[in-house]
Amino acid sequence: MRLIVDTDTAGDDVFSLLLALRTPGVELDAVTICAGNVAFEQQVENALYTIEAADRSGDVPVYRGADRPLLREWVDAAYVHGADGMGESNFPRARQRPAPGHAVDVIVRTVMEAPGDVTILAQAPLTNVALAYLREPAIARATRHLYVMGGTNNGIGNVTPAAEYNFYVDPEAARIVLGAGFDATLVDWNLCRRDGLFTHEQLDAIAALDTPLARFFGAVNRKVLEYCVSVGMPGSTHPDLLACAIALDDAVVLRSVRVAVDVETQGELTRGYCLVDSLHETDREPNVRIVEAADADLVFERFVEILR
Amino acid sequence: MRLIVDTDTAGDDVFSLLLALRTPGVELDAVTICAGNVAFEQQVENALYTIEAADRSGDVPVYRGADRPLLREWVDAAYVHGADGMGESNFPRARQRPAPGHAVDVIVRTVMEAPGDVTILAQAPLTNVALAYLREPAIARATRHLYVMGGTNNGIGNVTPAAEYNFYVDPEAARIVLGAGFDATLVDWNLCRRDGLFTHEQLDAIAALDTPLARFFGAVNRKVLEYCVSVGMPGSTHPDLLACAIALDDAVVLRSVRVAVDVETQGELTRGYCLVDSLHETDREPNVRIVEAADADLVFERFVEILR
Amino acid sequence: MRLIVDTDTAGDDVFSLLLALRTPGVELDAVTICAGNVAFEQQVENALYTIEAADRSGDVPVYRGADRPLLREWVDAAYVHGADGMGESNFPRARQRPAPGHAVDVIVRTVMEAPGDVTILAQAPLTNVALAYLREPAIARATRHLYVMGGTNNGIGNVTPAAEYNFYVDPEAARIVLGAGFDATLVDWNLCRRDGLFTHEQLDAIAALDTPLARFFGAVNRKVLEYCVSVGMPGSTHPDLLACAIALDDAVVLRSVRVAVDVETQGELTRGYCLVDSLHETDREPNVRIVEAADADLVFERFVEILR
Amino acid sequence: MRLIVDTDTAGDDVFSLLLALRTPGVELDAVTICAGNVAFEQQVENALYTIEAADRSGDVPVYRGADRPLLREWVDAAYVHGADGMGESNFPRARQRPAPGHAVDVIVRTVMEAPGDVTILAQAPLTNVALAYLREPAIARATRHLYVMGGTNNGIGNVTPAAEYNFYVDPEAARIVLGAGFDATLVDWNLCRRDGLFTHEQLDAIAALDTPLARFFGAVNRKVLEYCVSVGMPGSTHPDLLACAIALDDAVVLRSVRVAVDVETQGELTRGYCLVDSLHETDREPNVRIVEAADADLVFERFVEILR
Repeated sequence: MRLIVDTDTAGDDVFSLLLALRTPGVELDAVTICAGNVAFEQQVENALYTIEAADRSGDVPVYRGADRPLLREWVDAAYVHGADGMGESNFPRARQRPAPGHAVDVIVRTVMEAPGDVTILAQAPLTNVALAYLREPAIARATRHLYVMGGTNNGIGNVTPAAEYNFYVDPEAARIVLGAGFDATLVDWNLCRRDGLFTHEQLDAIAALDTPLARFFGAVNRKVLEYCVSVGMPGSTHPDLLACAIALDDAVVLRSVRVAVDVETQGELTRGYCLVDSLHETDREPNVRIVEAADADLVFERFVEILR
Repeated sequence: MRLIVDTDTAGDDVFSLLLALRTPGVELDAVTICAGNVAFEQQVENALYTIEAADRSGDVPVYRGADRPLLREWVDAAYVHGADGMGESNFPRARQRPAPGHAVDVIVRTVMEAPGDVTILAQAPLTNVALAYLREPAIARATRHLYVMGGTNNGIGNVTPAAEYNFYVDPEAARIVLGAGFDATLVDWNLCRRDGLFTHEQLDAIAALDTPLARFFGAVNRKVLEYCVSVGMPGSTHPDLLACAIALDDAVVLRSVRVAVDVETQGELTRGYCLVDSLHETDREPNVRIVEAADADLVFERFVEILR
Repeated sequence: MRLIVDTDTAGDDVFSLLLALRTPGVELDAVTICAGNVAFEQQVENALYTIEAADRSGDVPVYRGADRPLLREWVDAAYVHGADGMGESNFPRARQRPAPGHAVDVIVRTVMEAPGDVTILAQAPLTNVALAYLREPAIARATRHLYVMGGTNNGIGNVTPAAEYNFYVDPEAARIVLGAGFDATLVDWNLCRRDGLFTHEQLDAIAALDTPLARFFGAVNRKVLEYCVSVGMPGSTHPDLLACAIALDDAVVLRSVRVAVDVETQGELTRGYCLVDSLHETDREPNVRIVEAADADLVFERFVEILR
Repeated sequence: MRLIVDTDTAGDDVFSLLLALRTPGVELDAVTICAGNVAFEQQVENALYTIEAADRSGDVPVYRGADRPLLREWVDAAYVHGADGMGESNFPRARQRPAPGHAVDVIVRTVMEAPGDVTILAQAPLTNVALAYLREPAIARATRHLYVMGGTNNGIGNVTPAAEYNFYVDPEAARIVLGAGFDATLVDWNLCRRDGLFTHEQLDAIAALDTPLARFFGAVNRKVLEYCVSVGMPGSTHPDLLACAIALDDAVVLRSVRVAVDVETQGELTRGYCLVDSLHETDREPNVRIVEAADADLVFERFVEILR
């Protein structure tokens, strides 16, 4: 399968990238960087270093995209991921450098040159994808499938009670993308809290592998794990990895439903709130498939294969 | 205990009233009517008829209050409760008539004449309580305790995905009341969906009682039950009854927590959204106790005693 | 004529009160105080002192009303009126004390006891009037006429570019009152900037009177004048006085029109914006008479008579 | 001077284009089309036909841009301009066809290839300019000057009382562009109503010219004139022509001031409201030069030269 990963590379984004980079049969056309978790250029470096760590240096181009949300001030998540987004590992600079060209142009060109072929995995705020769609609305139909990590399916958010980070940071972009007509699957934070979590036992099992990639995982995951534990979670959460696992193999989806989904751009307390109309309380047509249950064990298994 | 019940009498409001009317030791100072579920005068009649059905005719005055929300158009819930709010039972007119005086004045006077003595159970949109507070801010401190049925604790609403009916109908009133400084307990819809539900078995057990009050319950509950079944619930929900049971006996509360709660008045998709900051994601001070688990069996038991 | 003046007594409110207190034929039933320009109790004292200055001590009761807006934090205007709202004159305490009872109850009772007889002049944020209407919706039809100083008719505001102070401070109250169905006249800030201004020549003419009331005027107006000059105005503005002059004699109105008027309660930049649909760009029905031109000379003449 | 005109070609846009096309010394790099007044492809045809009417066929490329606002549904203005935006003249199809490439790419490329050289005249909703800026933030500094026709400087709007059409249609785009850091001049609707109007005498003088371009003007202006007269104006308004005249020669500006300007994206009544902080009521820094008075006679004179 052909894949573009749009990412604000920090913490779990890295593991998602690893999975995409190391899974046989995945043709990763581009990694595109979008304003999000940590400083923009740091995210670029993190993507480049991850490609190198996955032993794919030079194979996959990394493109810079939007370095700010459409309309709002940028809000970072360094308190979750550490300042460098890599567990404060201070990795050396990768040899590979960013490719020339803008993420938005690359997304448009890649999708439009092969209509129906290219899948997009969006694990950052949706600024790049929204801009690509606004520049070329035809990508909505020409994209094979769009997988989005973001929003919260009627549960508590991770930035405010009302909102998950990616939708909070650029709610206008999220609203544009969800309303664009993509064949889309949403992997939301409420699902990820349950089915996108590695328990301490699982984390120990990864540590016990003691491979280079397992050590890389441990280093990068360090700050995220600290944060998750500090807010009372029984392990570390891996929403992007879960989204990637779903994008790579639909067998990970145990239950899903097509529903109407939209994003609040006007509220005072509810910026980036993700409306999921599970009970058909509105008269909106379903526009997104939302995953209601995922096979967490299968995700762990697949990821461990990669690290091994 | 001294109690005022503020109600938009329809369906489950009736059962809550029954519990308050028939529980020994409860001195019901007033029943105050607020714009909500069904037509205003119908709500007044429903309260009067319920008092008669509980064999308390003449004991408890019913006062008319606000017949519309503070700022918004009235939105009814007749599709849940039937047009008369009594399961379309077309009960005869009660002998007792509404008392002269306005609900807001009665709330203010009753509370201020006995500071620290009077509990308020608010099971309607919060228009009356907000107006009482705006008219006399001192009631916030002088009320013994305020129990509010309303909002949704990070779960799906029952009018829109974002909002529960009482907060949806008058979000400004809800915001005013929650911010007023009452010693308050919130019994939210997400709790009620789980711990405020009578199963079909329980409903059968009530029917088997075959007392006048059990038959009254069955008649009034008919439309609500139909509605609940139509949206996939395994029985009928009783949020007001749960709130009343909690107001009458704190032993019904199995787990609760003081949290910051607020209400969205500005959103496009999120009118009446209830922000519950369970994870301390904001820097707001806790202002409300929210019930996280209730003893559903105890509520059922208490209610069956009443019906017997 | 019977009149209630609802006021946040400071600066120009004082002169409006003087005009009402000293104009023959005006039966001033009550002065009601609403949260606004300066500290609430200071406003009460200012009203009492003004009554004394007008030689009417004991004739006109002053009632305390809402000491905060319905939903918002109070925003003062002491930077315009000086801390005491009386030009920092530090007047002695008046002998008359506030009357017992709440402004909202007084407004409701006064209007409902004589339907069609009582005029209301609202020169503060509309919190009291909104609460009176919410408590007794029938006052909208029973009030002879409601004169409101507030809003801006498609011109720049005096607190933000979008909003005039009274509507800015309690936009929800303003929206409620304008939508309530009163027979109402709006005297807006854009009119007042032009037709509610005393030029330096006129101010000199007042000073030259050298009567006790003219000296009182000069003292109270001192801070307002300083402020007006500092923002480039050719004199001092007297919006409340203009509104009062209009309420007392419609001959002051040179041109008026019935239009649809509403108030923004949801905007980010436009809190309290007053929509005036002069060009019929919406399909709203006219609900308010707005004054488009007033006889500034006649107002000055009337006021000078009072001061003489 | 090098110029890009971004336009939703209908009515007055046509006359602005004529002025730019026929004024010596103007190097018109591109005409870019943005969703606005009438159907998108009709706007493209109108631009092409205008170039032909100006005898410049083949000299100036026309590029298609965004065919919808960023976030909102498209709102047309055919009721002002007639269905074809050309006075319902049903002109034949121009020989020139649109150039390949997207307006947004063309704006970015043209500006970035010659930093400091290219002026942009934006006389449509600001969707294209916003997208160009989001794609390449550096254009804000690299554009020689941005002239925007849009917004209302504390006067009544032409779509709603609160808003002018271009800002109303895409308020998010307007907000993005005004906040982007362009060296920008705003020609607002309130100015244009006064200084961008051709009186009936002036219109008669144009008709008397009886040249091909004068007849073209008369045909295209027919519906706009009808509309203006129907809303009580003493002639027809020419906001885009005024903006173009200003862009071509600053001598047209009689008075201007640098002020803080922003756009409301959140209001219920005030979508697209243009905040202009003329009185420094906010603490915002000036970001735009706004024209407060323009030389209407000079504009007319220049335009007549073109038509002659």
